[in-house]
Amino acid sequence: MVSRLQALADPNRLRILDALRNGERCVCRLTDSLEMAQPLLSHHLKVLREAGLVSGRKDGRWVHYSIIPDALSEIEMLLAGVREDAVTAGPILDRC
Amino acid sequence: MVSRLQALADPNRLRILDALRNGERCVCRLTDSLEMAQPLLSHHLKVLREAGLVSGRKDGRWVHYSIIPDALSEIEMLLAGVREDAVTAGPILDRC
Repeated sequence: MVSRLQALADPNRLRILDALRNGERCVCRLTDSLEMAQPLLSHHLKVLREAGLVSGRKDGRWVHYSIIPDALSEIEMLLAGVREDAVTAGPILDRC
Repeated sequence: MVSRLQALADPNRLRILDALRNGERCVCRLTDSLEMAQPLLSHHLKVLREAGLVSGRKDGRWVHYSIIPDALSEIEMLLAGVREDAVTAGPILDRC
């Protein structure tokens, strides 16, 4: 979970996820639309892939990437669980 | 949003949020229950506070911290938006 959050916590990787939100994209298209150099894009896609946030599908000479929705769900559920507990927590204060 | 995700993406800070999920805690109690040295705990609480994830309330000589639920909601909504788009995205592939 920490590595997944670390993968998300980068402005370029958030831009990549935003570019992938409407469906699978070819890496050759991502370099153009994100105006990101190929090596940098490849590095960030590798981080996202290793964190389980995106998956790649080889099609000919290029790899096409898509978001793994369940990975995002898991983070949402972690945060929601903490948030729901915090919202319903009573006014019990530490005496110190 | 990036700074908020960066604040979350740390194992110690996730432990702190977990310790705060059931309500406001005094920093003096957190050092014990988390087995974290005071300076390190203070550093992480500062990062969480500056990211808008927790707020501190001074009570006597100690500060009591609590989670800011809306901050977590905002991250959840960001992720949910991307996830929902990705799930409903059609099979339109890049031709390249």
